[in-house]
Amino acid sequence: KPYRIAVIPGDGIGKEVMPEGLRVIEAAAKKHGVAVQFDHFDFSSYDYYEKHGQMMPDDWKAQIGSHDAIYFGAVGWPAKIADHVSLWGSLIKFRREFDQYVNLRPVRLMPGVPSPLAGRKPGDIDFWVVRENTEGEYSSVGGRMFPDTDREFVTQQTVMTRTGVDRILKFAFELAQSRPKKHLTSATKSNGISITMPYWDERVEAMAKNYPGVKWDKYHIDILTANFVLHPDWFDVVVGSNLFGDILSDLGPACTGTIGIAPSGNINPERNFPSVFEPVHGSAPDIAGQGIANPIGMIWSGAMMLEHLGEKTAAQAIVGAIERTLAERTLRTRDLGGNADTEACGKAVAEMVD
Amino acid sequence: KPYRIAVIPGDGIGKEVMPEGLRVIEAAAKKHGVAVQFDHFDFSSYDYYEKHGQMMPDDWKAQIGSHDAIYFGAVGWPAKIADHVSLWGSLIKFRREFDQYVNLRPVRLMPGVPSPLAGRKPGDIDFWVVRENTEGEYSSVGGRMFPDTDREFVTQQTVMTRTGVDRILKFAFELAQSRPKKHLTSATKSNGISITMPYWDERVEAMAKNYPGVKWDKYHIDILTANFVLHPDWFDVVVGSNLFGDILSDLGPACTGTIGIAPSGNINPERNFPSVFEPVHGSAPDIAGQGIANPIGMIWSGAMMLEHLGEKTAAQAIVGAIERTLAERTLRTRDLGGNADTEACGKAVAEMVD
Ligand SMILES: CC(C)[C@H](C(=O)O)[C@@H](O)C(=O)O
Ligand SMILES: CC(C)[C@H](C(=O)O)[C@@H](O)C(=O)O
Repeated sequence: KPYRIAVIPGDGIGKEVMPEGLRVIEAAAKKHGVAVQFDHFDFSSYDYYEKHGQMMPDDWKAQIGSHDAIYFGAVGWPAKIADHVSLWGSLIKFRREFDQYVNLRPVRLMPGVPSPLAGRKPGDIDFWVVRENTEGEYSSVGGRMFPDTDREFVTQQTVMTRTGVDRILKFAFELAQSRPKKHLTSATKSNGISITMPYWDERVEAMAKNYPGVKWDKYHIDILTANFVLHPDWFDVVVGSNLFGDILSDLGPACTGTIGIAPSGNINPERNFPSVFEPVHGSAPDIAGQGIANPIGMIWSGAMMLEHLGEKTAAQAIVGAIERTLAERTLRTRDLGGNADTEACGKAVAEMVD
Repeated sequence: KPYRIAVIPGDGIGKEVMPEGLRVIEAAAKKHGVAVQFDHFDFSSYDYYEKHGQMMPDDWKAQIGSHDAIYFGAVGWPAKIADHVSLWGSLIKFRREFDQYVNLRPVRLMPGVPSPLAGRKPGDIDFWVVRENTEGEYSSVGGRMFPDTDREFVTQQTVMTRTGVDRILKFAFELAQSRPKKHLTSATKSNGISITMPYWDERVEAMAKNYPGVKWDKYHIDILTANFVLHPDWFDVVVGSNLFGDILSDLGPACTGTIGIAPSGNINPERNFPSVFEPVHGSAPDIAGQGIANPIGMIWSGAMMLEHLGEKTAAQAIVGAIERTLAERTLRTRDLGGNADTEACGKAVAEMVD
């Protein structure tokens, strides 16, 4: 029985990089005897919104809820549609309603990608950011009082539940335990955010007891961001709340040269619901339609998807092909100083898959 | 009438860098005919806490509240005293009770300090981070429910008041207007933190109307941290909430090579209360007592203090002396590849003041 993948290209360059992602998955699936079936959906896009007045059909959960995974391009078009409509109407909905409580992103310096950090080489930076993806600072609890007066004030709550905190920590500790260095770093700010963050610290300490083989430490988020720049080699698995994880998983890829090639997974580890795999870059209206977008983030997200489905060998074959492609100047896209267009780069990766 | 400065060295290397800070201020004051009077205080330190069971005397406000400024070394000693006792018992108290609603930090790549960012040279990075310093994410409002059960949850509120937001934005826009580039960047996260952050954006937009000469933009905090690494030359004045400003004002100095030389001001612009000037580094228990700490952060904070008091020329003379000192390998401390000790470095700056 093939894996059933819901394919959602979305907006802008999402539509351009998606074919390359599919091409490479097909190549790897063929080589490694993995059966996949792609089902295409046009919703979760501005085009769909324009026609139907909403981002997704009412029965979106029925349409994609029983797939094995969702392969997602990009959504949003700030000039045409507000973020809170496009993003909260699709991406954030997936995260919440499919209980994708893990947001997972690799931070890895790749060959051929110049590091903005002086003197760092491929191999020097190689860690994972594990972000809590459903609660924390992204609650919708709060409000405004005394509007339009001098006494006006606005509040919003950060909400941390025992269930929510423990399950993301468990995922992060398990991941750390599976890695050679077995090292976990927790992002906190308990010296300033005096109620929720000490609770986070407390749960980290409790969870650590279950993983005696994992060395762990914690840093306040301010100095942690500084250490991403000054000592990126210190990290192996970094876990943070929804907001801190969001920050670290943009900063980390930036430290490895570009967020243009970074992949991500929005994961429900229990597989009660499909997980979403998408490149970190957005729809990029400024370069959309030119066929020059870098497809590596989309392709790498495909590798993460195969890994999640249990197809480790096929996944690793794709990552290896990405590395070999990036190493060749002529096969890289222009944003990385190459001269390949989106399709040429995607085809190169597909051919490199072994 | 001399400026009356309350001098609080605090803990660890705070006690070692303070004499150098005073030495340089005295040199600049003498050269520029500025009269200063230093009053020394031993509280806000672990030593004081050990003797008295509290960080500060009950009448601390009476003792230092009428001074023109507070010159502060470092506080905290994690192995001996919890942060929430040492920091919240002194530094955070000053911020709140002296209404120091601006936390101001320069981000400037200095000669002699190797940049962790590839290819960046002195002059390439030169901006200010303006942080709201009294409310926002550092509220103490919140609590825990159903403790020690599976239903346990913890909440903490972010609180933004019209007064609090508008006054920090006003300060930041004024600062931007006074600079050649006249450019302000606002840190937000209104696409994820859906109540307080859109309010912040709304107030930025309203405030911007009063400063038609200032170009402004906004970035979500995740991509903003990435841009600090990828495009530090984009920034002139960056304003953020208590938490975002905290993060950016550690990340910024890290991008210029070290937080070891960064200064900061906790400022009450109306001068109803004294402002606190302190180096960004902490008490550094690991190197305390060896006389090798870098005094530049302390000295630079002294320059910021003189600037705040209205003594621009003396302040600029100190910054110039810092630059000339750092440019000489033999005058730098070991953390910057030099071989000077704390005192030799301090004396060098004092002699360079012109
Ligand atoms: C010590 C801590 C509470 C403090 C803060 O977060 O405000 C520190 O990081 C700072 O920036 O002065
Ligand atoms: C678009 C935005 C709401 C989102 C987030 O903050 O979660 C994005 O930054 C991400 O990381 O996927």
